[in-house]
Amino acid sequence: MLNKRITISVDAMGGDLGPSVTIPAIAKACELHPDVAFLIFGIEADVRPFINAHPILLERSEFIPCDIAITMDEKPGSALRRGRKVSSMWQSIDAVKADNAHASISAGNTGALMAMSKVVLRMNQGIERPALAAIWPTLRGESIVLDVGATIGCSASQYAQFAIMGRAYARVVLGIADPSVALLNLGVEDMKGTDVIKEAAEVIGELGLNYIGFIEGDGIGRGEADVIVTDGFTGNVALKTAEGTARQITTMLSDAIKASWMSRIGYIFARSAFNVLKERLDPNASNGGIFLGLNGVVIKSHGGADVSGFTSAIEVAIEVSKAKINQIISRDIDDMQIVLENAWAERLE
Amino acid sequence: MLNKRITISVDAMGGDLGPSVTIPAIAKACELHPDVAFLIFGIEADVRPFINAHPILLERSEFIPCDIAITMDEKPGSALRRGRKVSSMWQSIDAVKADNAHASISAGNTGALMAMSKVVLRMNQGIERPALAAIWPTLRGESIVLDVGATIGCSASQYAQFAIMGRAYARVVLGIADPSVALLNLGVEDMKGTDVIKEAAEVIGELGLNYIGFIEGDGIGRGEADVIVTDGFTGNVALKTAEGTARQITTMLSDAIKASWMSRIGYIFARSAFNVLKERLDPNASNGGIFLGLNGVVIKSHGGADVSGFTSAIEVAIEVSKAKINQIISRDIDDMQIVLENAWAERLE
Repeated sequence: MLNKRITISVDAMGGDLGPSVTIPAIAKACELHPDVAFLIFGIEADVRPFINAHPILLERSEFIPCDIAITMDEKPGSALRRGRKVSSMWQSIDAVKADNAHASISAGNTGALMAMSKVVLRMNQGIERPALAAIWPTLRGESIVLDVGATIGCSASQYAQFAIMGRAYARVVLGIADPSVALLNLGVEDMKGTDVIKEAAEVIGELGLNYIGFIEGDGIGRGEADVIVTDGFTGNVALKTAEGTARQITTMLSDAIKASWMSRIGYIFARSAFNVLKERLDPNASNGGIFLGLNGVVIKSHGGADVSGFTSAIEVAIEVSKAKINQIISRDIDDMQIVLENAWAERLE
Repeated sequence: MLNKRITISVDAMGGDLGPSVTIPAIAKACELHPDVAFLIFGIEADVRPFINAHPILLERSEFIPCDIAITMDEKPGSALRRGRKVSSMWQSIDAVKADNAHASISAGNTGALMAMSKVVLRMNQGIERPALAAIWPTLRGESIVLDVGATIGCSASQYAQFAIMGRAYARVVLGIADPSVALLNLGVEDMKGTDVIKEAAEVIGELGLNYIGFIEGDGIGRGEADVIVTDGFTGNVALKTAEGTARQITTMLSDAIKASWMSRIGYIFARSAFNVLKERLDPNASNGGIFLGLNGVVIKSHGGADVSGFTSAIEVAIEVSKAKINQIISRDIDDMQIVLENAWAERLE
């Protein structure tokens, strides 16, 4: 890996609002992190006006014009065909591969981003498939939930790999020395769940992690575990259901408050409390999913993130770059490789 | 089916608090529904004192003493061995089988209740496996989500059967003439999801229902569909994650309000708004899951339901009994049998 100062490559075209969000966010990140440099990839006509509006970028970033922007609803196959080598998304990831950047970030199309990341960076040795890890706000602070949409359907050993990667990520971004790890299931008793989940519990139990067993959906928000392991289908449904429920409740509350002048007055007095709630539930504050398991760091921002949301995602990219997350994961995987191999061998018998 | 007045059989021993909740709830239901009779199953020493405390029950219910109560953490296999014929749970379900009751209700152990219901009542013709359907409060009213924990892993035709059953249930309990039906997935585009989900979408699309396609987790709370079809693993995680998120947000809000005297004053003024929210989020208000697909109606109450919660579940039992839900499902299944059989045949080729 390059030994110069931390450099983040950015796909400036990604997200619902593209450069009008990504470029001001990079400028903001430059102010907050004077030791970090940026590579900006995008279509000249769209990006240049925003760069010119932020003089700090002329000095702290390099702009690399590209021919193609991947659209938000494009299929991964089409994105790969059309965007190979020439798109801002591809080139931003390729900067990591070429050791010109420590991490790449995009608010673009998740499926395309994952497909390109796999093609460009390839999988980390010992990891079969990638996981998208999310930071989930809980009553006790924050937890890591993975996978939230990269890999549908997992084998027991893939769950185990996710546990190892999620634990490494929690150490880096949550600063927990020995994060507790749980498997998401429809019950906490040993007999509950699919065969593969029960098998995964056995394998993870053998790894010597701080594994605490099964957790149900309502245990995530209670902060019962630091790392919650699940497959991409279930994790994606859980994450979106939680986001939807949060939005539903705040809408219901706001409607109820608007319904009478008494409660409107109450709202004025209690505004600080509502602001605290709003802050704690702000999806922008915990923005920045990471694709784990690749030979290089790729961060996925929410497509709908605003400037502060995209800045948060950049900060995640900086943090994991500084911590050298991939080296930690590789080391952990090596440490547990023997255990995993034994588990695989046993299961093949 | 018996032609006399609506009769509900109750496993009085189920739930975290047993007869101290179930018996007062039956008494309450007697008051609310003068046309309904009850069969009460339970252990004499535990149940009798509560029955004696509610004179209305002496006239409107019959008490049948049993020898065994199934515990909340008992494994289904053990419950079946120990509780066969002699437990309050078994006998309450058996009353439906024997045409002595229109529906059976229990707040007991879900796994045991499902196992016993399958053994006693057997599956409805044309239905391979049962589904537990929940009523989910949304921004637009209420939706039906199924399965939330009965069947883990579904074939395409099982998803289709769930769609037909969920639609029938929505017509009965939500009073919607032609409910919209959606499949829960990790994206709304056709290409998203597992192979079996995509296949299920094809089969359901051929049934001539008001099928609107895929829905993501956050679409449930928005009320995007009247019936949301999923398998028991994903549905259970989604339901519990939503419950957990609701509890998390109300806890955060309450903590934030307690943090300053200004917001405490605000709370007093806005109390009516908070009460509205509390009411709309009260799990007791939408209590009463139903096992669909059996030759008879079995209702599952939350184990932690209070008297008003268990009363709500009894009311669901009464409602579906009056509407003859199983006849509706059987008719719908017959109507769509040809389509389903074609779909199966095609898939077997």
